[in-house]
Amino acid sequence: MTARANPFFGREPRPHLEGDFAREELALAHRNSALPLEALAYDVTPLGLHYTLSHFDLPRLDAAGFRLAVGGRVARTLSLTLDEIRRLPARTLRVTLECAGNGRGLMSPRYPSMPWLHEGVGTAEWTGTPLRHALEQAGVAADASEIAFLGADRGFDRGVEHDYGRSLKLADASSDDVLLAYAMNGAPLAPQHGSPLRLLVPGWYGMASVKWLTRIEALDRPFDGFQQVVGYRYRKFAGDPGVPITFAKPKSLMAPPGIPDWFTRRRLVEQGEVTLAGRAWSGAGIAIVRVDVGVDGAWREAALEPQRDRFAWQGWRFEWRAIPGEHELAVRATDATGATQPLEPEWNTNGMGNNAVQRVQVTVR
Amino acid sequence: MTARANPFFGREPRPHLEGDFAREELALAHRNSALPLEALAYDVTPLGLHYTLSHFDLPRLDAAGFRLAVGGRVARTLSLTLDEIRRLPARTLRVTLECAGNGRGLMSPRYPSMPWLHEGVGTAEWTGTPLRHALEQAGVAADASEIAFLGADRGFDRGVEHDYGRSLKLADASSDDVLLAYAMNGAPLAPQHGSPLRLLVPGWYGMASVKWLTRIEALDRPFDGFQQVVGYRYRKFAGDPGVPITFAKPKSLMAPPGIPDWFTRRRLVEQGEVTLAGRAWSGAGIAIVRVDVGVDGAWREAALEPQRDRFAWQGWRFEWRAIPGEHELAVRATDATGATQPLEPEWNTNGMGNNAVQRVQVTVR
Repeated sequence: MTARANPFFGREPRPHLEGDFAREELALAHRNSALPLEALAYDVTPLGLHYTLSHFDLPRLDAAGFRLAVGGRVARTLSLTLDEIRRLPARTLRVTLECAGNGRGLMSPRYPSMPWLHEGVGTAEWTGTPLRHALEQAGVAADASEIAFLGADRGFDRGVEHDYGRSLKLADASSDDVLLAYAMNGAPLAPQHGSPLRLLVPGWYGMASVKWLTRIEALDRPFDGFQQVVGYRYRKFAGDPGVPITFAKPKSLMAPPGIPDWFTRRRLVEQGEVTLAGRAWSGAGIAIVRVDVGVDGAWREAALEPQRDRFAWQGWRFEWRAIPGEHELAVRATDATGATQPLEPEWNTNGMGNNAVQRVQVTVR
Repeated sequence: MTARANPFFGREPRPHLEGDFAREELALAHRNSALPLEALAYDVTPLGLHYTLSHFDLPRLDAAGFRLAVGGRVARTLSLTLDEIRRLPARTLRVTLECAGNGRGLMSPRYPSMPWLHEGVGTAEWTGTPLRHALEQAGVAADASEIAFLGADRGFDRGVEHDYGRSLKLADASSDDVLLAYAMNGAPLAPQHGSPLRLLVPGWYGMASVKWLTRIEALDRPFDGFQQVVGYRYRKFAGDPGVPITFAKPKSLMAPPGIPDWFTRRRLVEQGEVTLAGRAWSGAGIAIVRVDVGVDGAWREAALEPQRDRFAWQGWRFEWRAIPGEHELAVRATDATGATQPLEPEWNTNGMGNNAVQRVQVTVR
């Protein structure tokens, strides 16, 4: 890990925030893209509507001159071109990715970071080669326990300068589902999705899927990169060493019905039969088995599509007889293990993994 | 104009705001996409990095069943399929589009709306047919003075329910540069850019380029649509009838140098020779003839690319000898008419057309 402390940048961004949003939070919301919730209607999210979360500036890498370095505890260090990676056996997986910080802006007090409300999610068809092919080519040493992944994006966080990097245990990294991905929805990766090459780790929150992937290192010890050790952990209090963030939790979202008001996004719905619809996913590859829709606090089961792709969201629908007046709609998913969404956010210091139910206020006329 | 007042929605979104940003503003920043400023490096903005501003939900229109209705003061009403429009003579134009509200979030007090900082801009290659071909086919009546354009996106603004709509004077609408555009960067329009058909009005702020265009009406009187009469006007005080917003003003932006801090986006730059670069545009089709870069308040002229496409931005570069310490960088464009960017925002009630110079704080080590 290359980490140089720098006196120009503080150790914590600023104290926790409540109420209105700081300009820094707004600037992050501008930089990163969110899924407009009506785009839940698409099985596969069109490019430009899938969420993005990039810690630092988007690197501009030249695909022609690109090399992926594979080193560390390996028999042979590699320097793979994109063509060499494309010639390895290819897989295409439909995967729902969600930002670990999705829902942070709904926690209070909230950690000063990207203030997602509900929209840090999307589903794409990712094409690449299982990472294990590259690892086999390099010959991972018997004493290697983790594989670290480093991106070309560099910056500071809490005073620590670093390239964005994450690691996986060797067993996790060897899954046939973990891809070196070079295409999204059938096209070469866009700059904001990691062009020309990224890691894709289905089932995990998005932070594991390192973009602009340029270096892979086999390690005989735990990776000590900032984003592994400090960045992505569930912490209950300041100073809590916390628990690493891994799999995504079960969650569901609704495309708000009716038409919006421009500024408040308050919804106006015509009375009568209204089809409510959205998506539910566990992320972790566990099927969602039940979705309930709440209307003014009364919950009823929605119609749910079966799981077709292990790592992709499932559609749900619910016929609602809308009666004039003010209503609160909500949606809640339960997975095959019985895990369900909490009714209120489960607070943690960094605002991670908030899978509390979404609530939508509507006016029926 | 279909406009029904609705008692559930107030006439003004809320009072002007100062300081931190309201949750409604944040939600708009999530819904709409911004250009990360490092993407100024691209001559043509990649899909997903070009700005978007959509007032209401993104409609999902079926290209196969799509019809463009042309009516009002015409000899023959038309109902054009997408194929019929594609068979008309095609043009491709490279155009820089900027949101009229870009920079609103930098005004104080600010109007409660999309709180753009600098990023509501992008450049694309738009392909379509000049609108005049469709108008000629319909036969615009001698008494027609304006052409109105209605989108499929519907919602409320300040209590008024309407489809998004704008108009142009017949003479403006008849320019060979005004396109019925069906492709962007060589691909069919993405949902968020108006799929399958939009208007493209080069030189004007983005509000004129109506997305999800489904109806065109020739009128013998001024169009009274909300977005024409109320929405997009420069107003100096509440109640001021104001002036319609038309052409984009001269502007320039810099890709901030160095590497960022995650939360503050403060920049760290290594001392020595640093190339500063960015783009400048008048939008209105008037060439930018000079760009100046300010370093700690001292202005010097940058190297500027000539105007190659009448409606597209021009690149500029500036070699800066960076000395350790804190610095403020700024950039200022001047067009062929002598119009230049103000040093401070020129306030108006709705936060429109802010082309004040961008300032970038950097730390050099």
